[in-house]
Amino acid sequence: MTLDMQVVVKFHPPAYDIRVENAPIPGIEHPDDAIVKVQLAGLCGSDLHVYRGHEDVDKEMICGHEFIGTVIALGSNFGVLATGRPSLYATLKLGDKVVAPFTVSCGECHFCRIGFTSRCIHSTLFGTPSLPGGQAQFVRVPKAGGTLFKVDDIAAVSPNTPLDDSSLLLLADILPTGVFAAIQPLQHAKLAAIISGIAYPLNGYLPEGLGRNAFLSAEDTVLTLAVVGLGPVGMCATVSLLDMLEDIRAERGVQFRIVTMDLNGTRREKMLAMVESIYGGQAPPNIAIADLDAGRDIINEWTGSLGCNAVLEVVGNNSALRLAYDIVQPFGVISTVGVHQGPPLPFIGREMYDKNVSFDFGRCPVRAMLPMAARILLKRQDVFAGVGGKTSLIEKIVGFEEAVDTYRQFDKGLCGKTLFDPWKK
Amino acid sequence: MTLDMQVVVKFHPPAYDIRVENAPIPGIEHPDDAIVKVQLAGLCGSDLHVYRGHEDVDKEMICGHEFIGTVIALGSNFGVLATGRPSLYATLKLGDKVVAPFTVSCGECHFCRIGFTSRCIHSTLFGTPSLPGGQAQFVRVPKAGGTLFKVDDIAAVSPNTPLDDSSLLLLADILPTGVFAAIQPLQHAKLAAIISGIAYPLNGYLPEGLGRNAFLSAEDTVLTLAVVGLGPVGMCATVSLLDMLEDIRAERGVQFRIVTMDLNGTRREKMLAMVESIYGGQAPPNIAIADLDAGRDIINEWTGSLGCNAVLEVVGNNSALRLAYDIVQPFGVISTVGVHQGPPLPFIGREMYDKNVSFDFGRCPVRAMLPMAARILLKRQDVFAGVGGKTSLIEKIVGFEEAVDTYRQFDKGLCGKTLFDPWKK
Repeated sequence: MTLDMQVVVKFHPPAYDIRVENAPIPGIEHPDDAIVKVQLAGLCGSDLHVYRGHEDVDKEMICGHEFIGTVIALGSNFGVLATGRPSLYATLKLGDKVVAPFTVSCGECHFCRIGFTSRCIHSTLFGTPSLPGGQAQFVRVPKAGGTLFKVDDIAAVSPNTPLDDSSLLLLADILPTGVFAAIQPLQHAKLAAIISGIAYPLNGYLPEGLGRNAFLSAEDTVLTLAVVGLGPVGMCATVSLLDMLEDIRAERGVQFRIVTMDLNGTRREKMLAMVESIYGGQAPPNIAIADLDAGRDIINEWTGSLGCNAVLEVVGNNSALRLAYDIVQPFGVISTVGVHQGPPLPFIGREMYDKNVSFDFGRCPVRAMLPMAARILLKRQDVFAGVGGKTSLIEKIVGFEEAVDTYRQFDKGLCGKTLFDPWKK
Repeated sequence: MTLDMQVVVKFHPPAYDIRVENAPIPGIEHPDDAIVKVQLAGLCGSDLHVYRGHEDVDKEMICGHEFIGTVIALGSNFGVLATGRPSLYATLKLGDKVVAPFTVSCGECHFCRIGFTSRCIHSTLFGTPSLPGGQAQFVRVPKAGGTLFKVDDIAAVSPNTPLDDSSLLLLADILPTGVFAAIQPLQHAKLAAIISGIAYPLNGYLPEGLGRNAFLSAEDTVLTLAVVGLGPVGMCATVSLLDMLEDIRAERGVQFRIVTMDLNGTRREKMLAMVESIYGGQAPPNIAIADLDAGRDIINEWTGSLGCNAVLEVVGNNSALRLAYDIVQPFGVISTVGVHQGPPLPFIGREMYDKNVSFDFGRCPVRAMLPMAARILLKRQDVFAGVGGKTSLIEKIVGFEEAVDTYRQFDKGLCGKTLFDPWKK
């Protein structure tokens, strides 16, 4: 090992082979690059797709797509205020603390300009054969002026709120993805008819000049939503949804009920602890945390068997999608943010027609969701914060020497969300 | 045949067996019923699902779900202004001319109150074993105060515009369904980011207090949409979409391009004639009418191969759905209003994730769309109007004695949309 070498967590194909190795420290390859010294790197459920061989990765690669750290090198395009370029190209400095979204986004293409940053034409996912990941001591970040998010920008919003590093790590993927899962149905025109109190089709296709729907009854203006899957993203989705729905209740008088569902009792206990923490000790009666059968029963009881206005499907497999369809009401919305794989969708066309169902699928545009996610993190850091606590999303922080064991445990469900500190001895 | 008998078009199972027969004149069965004397009844592409035996209808039934006519009898609940009941229970009179949407909607249940009238808890489709259809001289209309639409309500908006009866028939199904196909994507949050000029996620989840997106370029604010399928509903969807997009261009400065696609040259010729009629003789360069291969080429050329912001899928089968997916861009919206049948959807989960695609499926809530459809009909009656003309959607009006032949021809694609005049000798 020379001074040019770092320690990284590497995947070796075909599957179940993780090794901690030395690798060259990356350097600037393009004037838009930054090099980040990693402070914390996360292990995420979707790392297991590679680990288990489901992504058909056929060469060695550095793992991980969640990391925060400090900028230690910048390409020649930084520090120059070029017209129309994202502001970070002018303002990012050596020493800045940053969050890296799990995909690269240039901030300049058609999709980035609109805010659809997960479909940037330069999009690359960290921790794949095409871009070395964050489970390393150093990472090269392409299009860094579009991709990175400065922690100072959060601190500027709320200078008196200290943000601990394990909470910041949540901004790389799981909290923005939870926010995205929650906001998609709340922004859908079908729910707008209830939230706005304007009868569908909302009196037209432009939002101005609308009149109240005099026929709406109190029971119509209660939103019933379900969250299917209480992994870390599902928990983030639930906390985000609660925040948005409390705002809607305060501003619009629209009441809500949420059923969160998971097979796993440990996850349900943590979700309950989080809800209790948000509501000062006791979960209110409009929030239920249940297994799948009990969850269905609660939905039927609450809605007279009509079903939910929207379902957040945060698992990413067909049985969760099927459950979402079964519990959504006609003209309902299914928001699905998990990484679905190869099987055909478990629906026939007639089921779609007969229920007037809407789907919003796909990968979270993390960079676009970050300002909103940061606001929720600032507000709810007491819920998310800490390591190993009753409501913490993070179970432990370990050094790379425990990486091999940690992957093995995580794969078998023997540990929860774990962060790596690449400098821990 | 007695004075109590009428002439009707009946389907006999299992398939391809249509007979013109006598049947009892229906009477009031419930205080909410009306009896309508039919003036015109339409033959629709979805009547062929029954005719071909695809709906597994196992008993005789009176066909048809599109009709207009005159009220000749009313149940005892009419004429009374009951609190909270739809206004038609107080105002509908004998002799009123009405349009019947193709499904019954009570106007009073949870779904009707919101505007999701196609999922009324009392929903029944005319021309099925459970509700005799409109290809008859008389029809019983359940929940008539919620279901029917008074032609006087259109005339009140524009007293100087005479509406011919064959145009009014379009309001029973195909024009509202076209409007619905067009409005779903235009109201979707993903298109709102472009139409409003507010970057996704629209600065939040409530529509107030939003700022313009300074990064949007001229090319981002051009909406590219495709219409797949130019049957009568696809033509109505195109005319509706043009109307909405011209409004959006006038009010927001958002430009648009539309590609309409069909395999059938006769349909494309009619679509072209309609567009020429709207634009005073010549189709503008931002509107293309093409076969499927040429349509794909035009989309690629116009969008630099990015694809369409939204696709209106107005066919109702898997090859059309697949085409819609292939030509929609990441973060695009697919609006699909056709009656899909039994096969599984032609997609794997990963395709949904990888393109962040949104789907709005299902049956048009005709009653809720009728005011908007009536406005478009008033504005564009010159395009739709008449029978057998170059731009007419209706090819001919025949008596019931031609019903058997007409079904046979329509099934084989040998004639276009045909109306029945049940009183024609």
